[in-house]
Amino acid sequence: MPEAPGPADAVTPEQAAREQELVERVVASFEGAQDARLRTVLQSLTRHLHAFLREVRLTEDEWNRAIGFLTATGHLTDDKRQEFILLSDVLGASMQTIAMNNVASGNATEATVFGPFFVDDAPRIENGGDIAGGATGQPCWVEGTVTDTSGRPVPGARIEVWEADEDGFYDVQYGDDRTAGRAHLFTDDDGGYRFWAVTPTPYPIPHDGPVGALLAASGRSPMRAAHLHFMVSAPGLRTLVTHIFVRGDELLASDSVFGVKDSLVMDFEEQAAGTPTPDGRAVAGTWSRTRFDVVLAPGTVR
Amino acid sequence: MPEAPGPADAVTPEQAAREQELVERVVASFEGAQDARLRTVLQSLTRHLHAFLREVRLTEDEWNRAIGFLTATGHLTDDKRQEFILLSDVLGASMQTIAMNNVASGNATEATVFGPFFVDDAPRIENGGDIAGGATGQPCWVEGTVTDTSGRPVPGARIEVWEADEDGFYDVQYGDDRTAGRAHLFTDDDGGYRFWAVTPTPYPIPHDGPVGALLAASGRSPMRAAHLHFMVSAPGLRTLVTHIFVRGDELLASDSVFGVKDSLVMDFEEQAAGTPTPDGRAVAGTWSRTRFDVVLAPGTVR
Repeated sequence: MPEAPGPADAVTPEQAAREQELVERVVASFEGAQDARLRTVLQSLTRHLHAFLREVRLTEDEWNRAIGFLTATGHLTDDKRQEFILLSDVLGASMQTIAMNNVASGNATEATVFGPFFVDDAPRIENGGDIAGGATGQPCWVEGTVTDTSGRPVPGARIEVWEADEDGFYDVQYGDDRTAGRAHLFTDDDGGYRFWAVTPTPYPIPHDGPVGALLAASGRSPMRAAHLHFMVSAPGLRTLVTHIFVRGDELLASDSVFGVKDSLVMDFEEQAAGTPTPDGRAVAGTWSRTRFDVVLAPGTVR
Repeated sequence: MPEAPGPADAVTPEQAAREQELVERVVASFEGAQDARLRTVLQSLTRHLHAFLREVRLTEDEWNRAIGFLTATGHLTDDKRQEFILLSDVLGASMQTIAMNNVASGNATEATVFGPFFVDDAPRIENGGDIAGGATGQPCWVEGTVTDTSGRPVPGARIEVWEADEDGFYDVQYGDDRTAGRAHLFTDDDGGYRFWAVTPTPYPIPHDGPVGALLAASGRSPMRAAHLHFMVSAPGLRTLVTHIFVRGDELLASDSVFGVKDSLVMDFEEQAAGTPTPDGRAVAGTWSRTRFDVVLAPGTVR
């Protein structure tokens, strides 16, 4: 048998029948699952997994390499590094799951991937405060409102924001205990919010592991389009996990985790040095500003 | 959106189009792979993975549990325990890969799963020797021939055999350095072989990890039908990896890794205590005997 056998239609009817019979046996083996949803998921997984194997006529050598890839992915994964999430991300599986579970709801803001760098208990800042906490980068003024889909302001909405510094690293990637480039704040009585951050810059997803090797072999860049993460929640409304992206970023079309949506690309307006800031803060050099008006869909906090 | 959303046909055309557009973007991202085979495999994997996600409308909670499952599987895997192979086994993926790469060739003996317990450098025995090496169990006389598909004897064929002891454990599972229940030998000038082993008994695949939990939740038994492993190789012929099973074993229809093929089920004839043995060996109690005539397909040693 050649190393890369032909398509499935080169298989004899007898062989195809044997292969299909095996699929049916595996599907049947999950009939006894107590949980109907688990049964549905595992039976569907079985059918699609075998359809893949049969379509490509996976060789035994390729099967061994797949086992090796998963093993390496598992061994790299720990509390600080989640290589399986990266794998899901670069296969678009994370974004597809987000897309299915956050179906566009009227004019509500679109969701995108959560990413691996959120941490609970980021410090609280007041409206107008600074999330940088020492993170390096060009200062960036971010402001907007949180409303529901009928346009009613949402006071007291909790906004979590987090981002990488200008070197492309989140605080948690430094291996010390710093907290920087992340905070939470609450909208004021008219649903408005505002804070200082740093202008987002592009950075690579961690690419020194098996997922990075997969990208390299595929001719794909590990770079993510520049972005600022938001998670916005309020009682009675669907929690929104999203980012905003920077209009003009060359990486918008090739984001390594497929996270970009047109509606999330914002103008980050460059401000010359000396331009007065909205809150009178003294800024030594250039700065930028952007606006992000969040619309929360109806639903419950997750 | 409900926790277990309805089938894909409940999705609006606009939503379906968005989801399909994402699939196409991910597929296109692999266009630049230098290796055409890698491109084919990853693009097919992408399509089938997304088809699965969309068919079951995977929830974000389920996605999290899947990441957790893979992480636990990776952490349990080490030099001695290969939980990803077990996962492939219980999903029938291992057996399907074997089935595709060892297409029935005339009257050649069928292949089955390799399993995780083979080790290189098992001791050599002479024809008529004993592979038990201290492994406990009822003595079992195994004999047969190795021929090619035209019936010509294959002298000097290398036969690797390995099996669990009567407690269901392979030597490598004991955590000491014992070698037991495994050996290699060569066919004699007329292609014949014979050796003492122990009568195979059923045993569970390791089921104290995530794969065991998956089986339990699915109402599936971890038990494998009793078997004796063979790997038979000879120059100019396709290497055969297979087992033989025991006729009458109640587990033949529910083998946890889908390894049973009718053609591999053999009669193990129970012998009363005192029955003379083929080679005059003194056996204290009962013993069994079986015959396995191996037919190797044309091909090259792998």
